[in-house]
Amino acid sequence: MGKSIWAASLIATIIGVTVNVPLPDTVYVSIAFAILASVVTWKTLPRLAMTFVEARVSGVDVLKRDRPLLPEAMGFPTAVIYLIAMFCFIPFPFINWFDGEARLVHEDNPMIGTFPYHKLGQILSAILAIQSMVLLGFADDILDVRWRYKVWFPAVASVPLLIFYYTNFGVTHVVMPLQLRSLLGELVDLGPLYYVYMVMLVIFCTHTINILAGINGIEAGQSLIIALSIIINDLLYMCNNTDRESLEAHLFSLYFMLPFAGVTAALLAHNWFPARLFVGDTFCYFAGITFAVVGILGHFSKTLILFFIPQIFNFIYSCPQLFRLVDCPRHRMPRFDSTKRLLQCSTVIIKPSNSLRAKLGRLILKILYMLGLLKVIKWDDDGRLVECNNLTIINLVLARLGPMSEVNTTRTILGIQVLSSLFAFFIRYKLVQYVY
Amino acid sequence: MGKSIWAASLIATIIGVTVNVPLPDTVYVSIAFAILASVVTWKTLPRLAMTFVEARVSGVDVLKRDRPLLPEAMGFPTAVIYLIAMFCFIPFPFINWFDGEARLVHEDNPMIGTFPYHKLGQILSAILAIQSMVLLGFADDILDVRWRYKVWFPAVASVPLLIFYYTNFGVTHVVMPLQLRSLLGELVDLGPLYYVYMVMLVIFCTHTINILAGINGIEAGQSLIIALSIIINDLLYMCNNTDRESLEAHLFSLYFMLPFAGVTAALLAHNWFPARLFVGDTFCYFAGITFAVVGILGHFSKTLILFFIPQIFNFIYSCPQLFRLVDCPRHRMPRFDSTKRLLQCSTVIIKPSNSLRAKLGRLILKILYMLGLLKVIKWDDDGRLVECNNLTIINLVLARLGPMSEVNTTRTILGIQVLSSLFAFFIRYKLVQYVY
Repeated sequence: MGKSIWAASLIATIIGVTVNVPLPDTVYVSIAFAILASVVTWKTLPRLAMTFVEARVSGVDVLKRDRPLLPEAMGFPTAVIYLIAMFCFIPFPFINWFDGEARLVHEDNPMIGTFPYHKLGQILSAILAIQSMVLLGFADDILDVRWRYKVWFPAVASVPLLIFYYTNFGVTHVVMPLQLRSLLGELVDLGPLYYVYMVMLVIFCTHTINILAGINGIEAGQSLIIALSIIINDLLYMCNNTDRESLEAHLFSLYFMLPFAGVTAALLAHNWFPARLFVGDTFCYFAGITFAVVGILGHFSKTLILFFIPQIFNFIYSCPQLFRLVDCPRHRMPRFDSTKRLLQCSTVIIKPSNSLRAKLGRLILKILYMLGLLKVIKWDDDGRLVECNNLTIINLVLARLGPMSEVNTTRTILGIQVLSSLFAFFIRYKLVQYVY
Repeated sequence: MGKSIWAASLIATIIGVTVNVPLPDTVYVSIAFAILASVVTWKTLPRLAMTFVEARVSGVDVLKRDRPLLPEAMGFPTAVIYLIAMFCFIPFPFINWFDGEARLVHEDNPMIGTFPYHKLGQILSAILAIQSMVLLGFADDILDVRWRYKVWFPAVASVPLLIFYYTNFGVTHVVMPLQLRSLLGELVDLGPLYYVYMVMLVIFCTHTINILAGINGIEAGQSLIIALSIIINDLLYMCNNTDRESLEAHLFSLYFMLPFAGVTAALLAHNWFPARLFVGDTFCYFAGITFAVVGILGHFSKTLILFFIPQIFNFIYSCPQLFRLVDCPRHRMPRFDSTKRLLQCSTVIIKPSNSLRAKLGRLILKILYMLGLLKVIKWDDDGRLVECNNLTIINLVLARLGPMSEVNTTRTILGIQVLSSLFAFFIRYKLVQYVY
């Protein structure tokens, strides 16, 4: 199963890319790197499994009957292979400057050559941001950093990116929707607020994949679907667009997304039910920052956000527990019914507190119940809510669609992710004309 | 003791920098960052100690009577603090482009602005190389990678550096010594060989500090002395030189070395005898690659090599064991005499083999003995060498200068390092006129 997913997604990517789209040669080089990195990842991960288990970088898969011990943080070697692939890819977009006359001009006058250093700087700052997050993610996997600290990790990692953004674009205005233009004008300059927006975007993308996690294949699966959505969006842009700058922005995105999709597909194949390894926080961070980087430097952060609809829903849905209006157990993964081998939603007991915070929590739960977004397990005699499902999209799916096998749960969530991406394309290419 | 070393080296650095040398403002900013990073490192490391021990990233200090369990790989947080400091420092060298007219010109014409992207790219590629090595070093500390793989880690980490070097300088010729000029000419273009040279330099610098290791304070101590030597060399250059490019190269070196000296001093203070933490492979790699990066991008790789005289000696001296001509135990650290609390040289037993390899090994040992560079513990009746000290500079010092306390061993080795640096300056500024 794992192998076929891997092969299918690779083939789909290649066909999707090569059919009917006139592409620069560098994209084919990038595809070659993606395939190579994917194969290397596929071959390398099983060989590293024992090393990780021996180094005690491992965890128990509690949703299985035999509770196997699996290597953890395998997103780390995946990310390292990706980074090495990107290192080796760096020269290719600049290959025209490396031979012939351009090179000669450059050598005579090294400081003011024709070489596009701003493009090289863009790639370097992007890789630097991604690598920073991989570094911090691996540290988190090993040292188990507390949330209050690690929530700021992506902000640290985004510093080189923002500095580069400042020097290279410095664009801080946003285009207003048609409906607001009479009030605010067509462009509104957000100034420093735009940098706050970018940091928030990086933090959101990085943590949001880590929150929608806990069952085999879910982290790598959602990341692969988002990556493929971004790739398709880039290709659509490149078909319909002749504007050079926009073209280059989406080329940049492709260079980063193609190898990412490659290594992620290989990782997913090993992490698919029944998993032989866990991806770890490293992978979730790595995936999130990579999306944020291409969204920001590729100038399509709004479209990017559209591809995160399930994650946004999951985050908002989780908020009452994340901000402790409702009790939050350390793990909110589904409960495993070992006799039937099925997953059920895990639940939380609502303590009968009268604090303002608890009252607000109960109000929100009541609203969720009325919206059909909550399964109440138990009411007390006064009609007060005593037990309900944990507030994650996985538990909601299990609460609504009944007990389900782990693999079907993953399939359902990934199905929702695919539908969301289709909806995102609909908004982006159809509905958008009524807004912009 | 630790605290005073830290304070003394900080003060020495500051005085050394500020007295009599006209420096650009950015150097003072860099000094401020160095002090800040040093204080943060000093404060943070003890707080992280328990986290590391709990995560089982720890090791036993076998050269103490009570064999305490100490946190390992504390070079990792040190390097992270350094990297964050460097991230935040990035904008300062470019501050003139960020306000006034230069910025305006840039905004009208973002693609061909006056902004020195090649300088930004230089800093980004340098940080990227350093960060890659920190990432791989930490992985090595956690996963205990085999030598045959990890010997190539620095080559991987140097890829972004070499690519940047290719685009920015592309200089591959070396100036010949006077004595060879009649034969080879003044400049010899090494072409691709120059890149091989740079990779070898990176590999050498990175591993060489890791080989001269094993007693409290030795890794951080030698690194601090090398860093201060580079800083002094930079300042000497900046006093005597008005050539703009050479000035900028040494400014670049200062930007990287000042914060490095800062964090290393703080780490050394905690790692000084009796150590409260170990620095780990992470630190050795981090230090080595940082030196290599500034040596290559600052164009003073030959001077840099001069500061590594004890490391070069230690490496050559170790070669018979590294290449298995002589048996090599897994650890070659000194032996601890727990009754006297003194260190003695550890020894190796020479097996009576008749293979070519073993014969060659015995020949080398005999030569070393004649040169006074080997202490023979035992001869057999035929006058054949049976037991001698392990081939490291630490064991040689202990073999020659008798049993010594651990702290005095470290002091002796660091004393040798200081003398070597003085000798290096003598070669660089006095002897050089007879060669170049």
